[in-house]
Amino acid sequence: MPVRFHGPTALRRITNKVVTNWHRFEDHSLRLFKGVSLPDSWLKSEKSETVRPKRLKQDTNCQKLVYSFGAGAAEGGRDDVPLLGLKGANLAEMCRLGLPVPPGFTIPTIAYHNEYAKGELSTRLKAQVKKALGILQQQTGRSFGDPENPLLLSVRPGARVPMPGLIETVLDLGLNDETVAAALAAQNQQPERCRYVLRSYRRFIQSYADIVLGIRPAIFERVLDDYRLSRGLPPNAQLSTDDLQQIVKHFKAVVEKHTDTPFPQDPYEQLWRAIAAGFAAWDDEHTAIARKVAGIPHEWGTAITIQQMVFGDCGEDCATGYFNTRDIETGRKCLSGRYLIDAQGIDLFHGLKAPACLRRGETVGGGERPSFEEWRPELYRQIGEIAKRLEQHFKDAQFVEFTVEKGKLFLLQTQPAQRSSKAAIRIAVELAQEGLISRQMAVLRVSPDSLDPLLHPTLDPDQDITVLTRGIPAAPGAASGAIVFDVGEAQRLAAQGRGAIFVCKETGPKDVQAMSAASGVLTSRGGMSSHAAVMARGMGKPCVTGAAGVEIDAVRKVLNIAGKRFKAGDEITIDGKTGAVLAGSARMHHPELSGSFATLMSWADEFRRMQVRANAEMPRELRQARRFGAEGLGLCRTEHMFFEPAGLIAIRRMILAETEQDRKSALDQLALLQQRELTNLFEIMAGRPVTIRLFDPPLHEFLPRLEDDVRNVADRMGISDVRLRRRIAELKESNPMLGHRGCRLAITYPEIPRMQARAIFEAAIEVEKRIKRRSEIEIMVPFVAMRSEFDLVRAVIDDVAAEVAKQHGIELSYRVGAMIEVPRAALRADDLSDSADFLSFGTNDLTQMVLGISRDDAAKFLSDYLSRGVWETDPFVVLDKAGVGTLLTEATERSRERKPGITLGICGEHGGDPQSIRFFEALDLAYISCSPFRVPVARLAAAQASLLRDRGDG
Amino acid sequence: MPVRFHGPTALRRITNKVVTNWHRFEDHSLRLFKGVSLPDSWLKSEKSETVRPKRLKQDTNCQKLVYSFGAGAAEGGRDDVPLLGLKGANLAEMCRLGLPVPPGFTIPTIAYHNEYAKGELSTRLKAQVKKALGILQQQTGRSFGDPENPLLLSVRPGARVPMPGLIETVLDLGLNDETVAAALAAQNQQPERCRYVLRSYRRFIQSYADIVLGIRPAIFERVLDDYRLSRGLPPNAQLSTDDLQQIVKHFKAVVEKHTDTPFPQDPYEQLWRAIAAGFAAWDDEHTAIARKVAGIPHEWGTAITIQQMVFGDCGEDCATGYFNTRDIETGRKCLSGRYLIDAQGIDLFHGLKAPACLRRGETVGGGERPSFEEWRPELYRQIGEIAKRLEQHFKDAQFVEFTVEKGKLFLLQTQPAQRSSKAAIRIAVELAQEGLISRQMAVLRVSPDSLDPLLHPTLDPDQDITVLTRGIPAAPGAASGAIVFDVGEAQRLAAQGRGAIFVCKETGPKDVQAMSAASGVLTSRGGMSSHAAVMARGMGKPCVTGAAGVEIDAVRKVLNIAGKRFKAGDEITIDGKTGAVLAGSARMHHPELSGSFATLMSWADEFRRMQVRANAEMPRELRQARRFGAEGLGLCRTEHMFFEPAGLIAIRRMILAETEQDRKSALDQLALLQQRELTNLFEIMAGRPVTIRLFDPPLHEFLPRLEDDVRNVADRMGISDVRLRRRIAELKESNPMLGHRGCRLAITYPEIPRMQARAIFEAAIEVEKRIKRRSEIEIMVPFVAMRSEFDLVRAVIDDVAAEVAKQHGIELSYRVGAMIEVPRAALRADDLSDSADFLSFGTNDLTQMVLGISRDDAAKFLSDYLSRGVWETDPFVVLDKAGVGTLLTEATERSRERKPGITLGICGEHGGDPQSIRFFEALDLAYISCSPFRVPVARLAAAQASLLRDRGDG
Repeated sequence: MPVRFHGPTALRRITNKVVTNWHRFEDHSLRLFKGVSLPDSWLKSEKSETVRPKRLKQDTNCQKLVYSFGAGAAEGGRDDVPLLGLKGANLAEMCRLGLPVPPGFTIPTIAYHNEYAKGELSTRLKAQVKKALGILQQQTGRSFGDPENPLLLSVRPGARVPMPGLIETVLDLGLNDETVAAALAAQNQQPERCRYVLRSYRRFIQSYADIVLGIRPAIFERVLDDYRLSRGLPPNAQLSTDDLQQIVKHFKAVVEKHTDTPFPQDPYEQLWRAIAAGFAAWDDEHTAIARKVAGIPHEWGTAITIQQMVFGDCGEDCATGYFNTRDIETGRKCLSGRYLIDAQGIDLFHGLKAPACLRRGETVGGGERPSFEEWRPELYRQIGEIAKRLEQHFKDAQFVEFTVEKGKLFLLQTQPAQRSSKAAIRIAVELAQEGLISRQMAVLRVSPDSLDPLLHPTLDPDQDITVLTRGIPAAPGAASGAIVFDVGEAQRLAAQGRGAIFVCKETGPKDVQAMSAASGVLTSRGGMSSHAAVMARGMGKPCVTGAAGVEIDAVRKVLNIAGKRFKAGDEITIDGKTGAVLAGSARMHHPELSGSFATLMSWADEFRRMQVRANAEMPRELRQARRFGAEGLGLCRTEHMFFEPAGLIAIRRMILAETEQDRKSALDQLALLQQRELTNLFEIMAGRPVTIRLFDPPLHEFLPRLEDDVRNVADRMGISDVRLRRRIAELKESNPMLGHRGCRLAITYPEIPRMQARAIFEAAIEVEKRIKRRSEIEIMVPFVAMRSEFDLVRAVIDDVAAEVAKQHGIELSYRVGAMIEVPRAALRADDLSDSADFLSFGTNDLTQMVLGISRDDAAKFLSDYLSRGVWETDPFVVLDKAGVGTLLTEATERSRERKPGITLGICGEHGGDPQSIRFFEALDLAYISCSPFRVPVARLAAAQASLLRDRGDG
Repeated sequence: MPVRFHGPTALRRITNKVVTNWHRFEDHSLRLFKGVSLPDSWLKSEKSETVRPKRLKQDTNCQKLVYSFGAGAAEGGRDDVPLLGLKGANLAEMCRLGLPVPPGFTIPTIAYHNEYAKGELSTRLKAQVKKALGILQQQTGRSFGDPENPLLLSVRPGARVPMPGLIETVLDLGLNDETVAAALAAQNQQPERCRYVLRSYRRFIQSYADIVLGIRPAIFERVLDDYRLSRGLPPNAQLSTDDLQQIVKHFKAVVEKHTDTPFPQDPYEQLWRAIAAGFAAWDDEHTAIARKVAGIPHEWGTAITIQQMVFGDCGEDCATGYFNTRDIETGRKCLSGRYLIDAQGIDLFHGLKAPACLRRGETVGGGERPSFEEWRPELYRQIGEIAKRLEQHFKDAQFVEFTVEKGKLFLLQTQPAQRSSKAAIRIAVELAQEGLISRQMAVLRVSPDSLDPLLHPTLDPDQDITVLTRGIPAAPGAASGAIVFDVGEAQRLAAQGRGAIFVCKETGPKDVQAMSAASGVLTSRGGMSSHAAVMARGMGKPCVTGAAGVEIDAVRKVLNIAGKRFKAGDEITIDGKTGAVLAGSARMHHPELSGSFATLMSWADEFRRMQVRANAEMPRELRQARRFGAEGLGLCRTEHMFFEPAGLIAIRRMILAETEQDRKSALDQLALLQQRELTNLFEIMAGRPVTIRLFDPPLHEFLPRLEDDVRNVADRMGISDVRLRRRIAELKESNPMLGHRGCRLAITYPEIPRMQARAIFEAAIEVEKRIKRRSEIEIMVPFVAMRSEFDLVRAVIDDVAAEVAKQHGIELSYRVGAMIEVPRAALRADDLSDSADFLSFGTNDLTQMVLGISRDDAAKFLSDYLSRGVWETDPFVVLDKAGVGTLLTEATERSRERKPGITLGICGEHGGDPQSIRFFEALDLAYISCSPFRVPVARLAAAQASLLRDRGDG
């Protein structure tokens, strides 16, 4: 089956999510908006969503509705992207550079706003277009609508950013029955011209019908197939003039049947309707969805470029192709591209003919056809010079479309080249090293999010592997391994050096060990911010959550994915980048942090204002965090140490203690463990600031949940299961998220913070003796809602500190701060600042409470909310600036008013999100803290935020 | 065993909650601060907690440290309560009125702040006191410290408000060994004087030791008992002079043993230390607790009044007593009181001798002893005149202590009389009718909270009934009945007209029916704002929640309360006013809304600005609300209608529907039910504004929870229990409070709001036809966090309205508003105001989210938080002004800035809390809405808030 024309219909299929070829979709459409580097003008216009194109302000009359280009001159240029669209502005710029561009003109975006309504164009616009067409006729010596020597046009809408496949080009506009009749009349003299005109007419009708009249191309394809079948013609057979005449007749009949009017013969009517269709496409619902995905505001509108047709399909000395000025996979400085002899641009994507390479030896085993370099060495050299010229001029690697008409090269558009994340980094660094751009610009050129795949293994896209289902891509990276349902099995496999995918309905703190041993995590419930997701990102493990169609029976240890049954030990693969769950084991690409990466990060650190810390506590994560450049810890969750087997036993003993004696001995044991772990931690962090959060979760999280476990645990603890069950029931909570946790526990059981404070101080003293460096201790009180709570806990800490200092005969230096995660704490940040040394915003819980959303339960309406546009983005991924952000802004103001110079930081997941980081920079926070694997992303994003802010874009 | 001296020790016992005689504690201590009416000066000083006494501002030098009174003249008077304390100011005032008051002087509160530190008095203060003593010696003709003719003093600390039992009086100060020696020397001439001096000395030592030296009175009592035993004396035997001499010797030895110094002999030393002890008592921890309970700020400090002793125990022509100027139980205008012949004031509370009545026939069966009226008719007449004079002067019913010394009447203090709620209303109304106070003042005189017991049955305090345990008093009123565990039993008893107490670990929406049928609710979990509490208050049913020591086995239908076993059908009693759970059935007082009540409420309505609405939906509650004067509904929870049996079946069918057909038919059935209930509602509310909240709770609340129920329901629904169980599992949420509920459901299932909107409009049209009054419809969208949510739901409502209007060929008028209960909605109240017609603050959920507290789980730390002062008051009872209040203030500002004149109201439980209502008045809200039973409270509180605001105290 031939690959279908990649037009609006195809995109419709994509946006309706029926596409299974997921990585292609990602490459072709998404990366354009995400990983792409931006020209300066673009970055600036990104500042505010409602900014209007510059020219609009200057040209207040908005009288000029056509900008011509051609013959080495142009109205407008590269700075006019908001007005002329990327395509129009760059074509004008190339003309100015004297590069070979077919002449034409661009209708600016302002016309979309002012001269177009309800499918109709204004008279004023039409008049100016007619005038521009006159100039074009003079330049080309052809006449629009002339049967003998017609001026044929392409009509290409183009917005400020490339949106390929969304808004399509009408080609060969200007043909009609008369031109065809004239060509047929001259058939004997010019048989090729005749065939060519007919072929073009057929294609024009089809594309016009699709784009302007809304008739699906499939209908025409079927007519064509039926015709071939009826004549017994093979699919690839050349069609004769007669065949083409017949087919054109059929095509016109289809149009008439669908529209109740004959195919339009007046070239001006064709033109007006094509322009109107271009404008209309900007408003259609599929473009709207794509715009939303890419964050492109509707207000930008689209420009439309009308250009003389050049033909790559007029014989063996004609060709069509594209090139990138650098290798877009690796970033190497060399040409790359594809071309086809005797073909039109869209054939490159048709797939009927396989295109050949541009450079000799560009791909291994390069195919039978000669490379462009071999086919036309002189044109290849010309392209080489053009490439150099464009890079010098546009200061970036470019992607260029070209056509060779009768041996002559024409450029049809240039835009920043799409590139892989890896290439993006190398290109930015090398452009700076070549002196084309500043190091600042190089730092701004790389999308922080694009670093993420470089830090994790990724699926090799060139392999056959079945996607079983798709969940929420909750933590990046890919992993293959045997299905495991419990910690024991995960640890056994880990010990053998084998991969394991831990599968669970939803995880809780008791699953941390299993997650830690496994190579990836799959859950059937939860969203981007469920426990599984947050923990997995913290551990740098791939994770897919809320996977629909995954049914888990943890007791029988079987798994049902989209109707297929798997049992413990069966191999599966998860891709945390796309949410895909795949059968079997898959080939991976492994991360390599190359030289360019290191260079870029060092530049970023130079320009960065905010400190970047990590949220981590386990030795492996701590080391990972240091490797990735964390400057300290912003959140060390002390309770995680109690989920290790020894800790779990001790904390359960504490919870179940019935005598003072039992309780004390359990606490002593916990103190030992805590001190040991903290000693490790201080040693690894070697004097960097370390924020240690006191015990936070509700106690019931440490007790078993399943009936079986209850019996086992009761046995092991030597108590009756009735007693254990009673205690579980006592501790049960309706809404544990808002329950007896955080400093509330510290107030009810002051012996817990007392034990923890002692462990912290003793560990720090021990490490200082050992490594001769003093630890920078920051103790954080969690879940504070009011100052009175904070003061009570602080008093316990200060008391222990005084005791320990006296025992050791030393002075202890430490700071005590509050975690701001309850809205009230943000509302009273002034009061808290009175007695806290620092405030750290825990934006995860803050988002949950400000929005009234339990992240563990959000999966039920999350996708609905995103698809219906209730949320623009998942508020657990990108900070909800309007809501949570308002509270944060007020809180920082209140806090600084009360205590100028107080340290304010972020330790929620948003600390690793680039968009949120720009907001934190604007708040002037001292530091951001995130999962170790997000640290490089945060470093780059923080640098960009600083740079943009310095430029007044912050 | 004799009742112990009601001194600090007794109070200590009370505040440590070991007192079992709960209603006495309530009467003697708490009511003083709660139900009492306040003099004008007092109400004003209540304005702000940090306000300083008026005089302090005027007398900036703070030079005057002594205010004398006596012989018909006084420095200071009734307006100086902040400076002189209630006692000191009123003694001065009585002197000015020429009433018989023993002369003395008062050390003002300013001295507590400036002239006292670390137990020591300043020299300046001592000098001024000595000077005042000089005047006093002149006035009395006695000399301080003179062995022959000593001036004896009482030293009484007194704050702005009465705090009986907390800060005690030292009596007979000025006695020492010398005075005793002089008396003994004159023993033969004046045997009575000698005995009397010895008796006084003994008592002086004991009270001085207790109050100043901190030696427990029990030690002296034991010495006394031992002495009697050793001599074979019966407990009540008169002690001889010799005995008394011996005992005094023993007492002095006890003091010396405990303090390592002899009992102080220097009268000045005695005086300085007694004054210092008075000041110190203000700082002690028991006073601190009592202050906190009563909401009295530490800054007020205490004054100390030093007065010449008068003796009620010098013979048969002496007496001590107190009187109230009106009957404090009923409010009737007549004297009431008690007195004892030949006794000192504290004997009245000793209980060793039973006091007699003041008025003849004051109590039924009045005792053997003659009333005061009979004993000394001329003094009784004098008291009558004084009472009239005091009321005229103080504009309120007064409580007066007096002593009769040798037939002469002395007044020792006057203060507003304690009174029952019922009396408070009658006295206020009658004082206004007598022209003593304005109607405004009458409205301000009655504490709104004191109305509550008048609206519910209360326990008759005069009965013997065992308190089994005590929970949280969650909804007022008392009820007796058979224990029931399920709705069927409750309904069966209700049908028989018998009382039932519904017992449950914690209730959920599925229990609403059972609660509705029962006469009271008892839960072992939850707090003031648990589901059970909120619903019970709404229904006006008594409720005790979080009752410690109540173990419920709903399967076996047994109940364990504090170790005693009860089974279904056994009678118990709960008291929602005190949280007591009692065995068996109890006698009740039933509410009667008397004439004074009605008069007061009509005055309140005259002065009220905010509208008062009710939160109700069931016909009985709606009628109750109207009876109590609700002006509309502020919250009608539509889902409550679905907890009735027919509704429950239909909604379960909807939730479990697998085909479009099933779903539609279930919805049709729900629509019918909803419309029928709403027709009832509109008819009862007869054109008053009605705010109907769309469906709010998560769906799982409608599915069974117990294993047994699952099987039953599956059976009845004709589906497999596996399927039902699967659906239950699907709908399960970790934090349902923050889950898939409110408008989130409306967005996921638009057919639900569509069905509801239609039912609302159709019902309103039907009722309009029937009663010829148009309903004022306000539709409220619950749990909105962002405007996009509201807009989606509003679109559905508007759409249905247009449809219905077209069908009926009429115009529909209705308003659509948002319930502001998610913090984000408050933060974006501006955006919401753009498209909402009104905003109603749901302060229950708002408090939960702003404070991060699940009300169902708060019981675990609630009492800890209250007792440790983390919270001053339960934030679910009294609005947390500093936190939630800040958000509300900002939200109202934002909202009005965007849409001036928008209707803003409150529909949380706080709408019925007087303190919160003052805050809402300050926010200028249009209405408050609360449970029907709180409506009268809210009406009165709203009137007071308006009046105080007009006076500039708001």
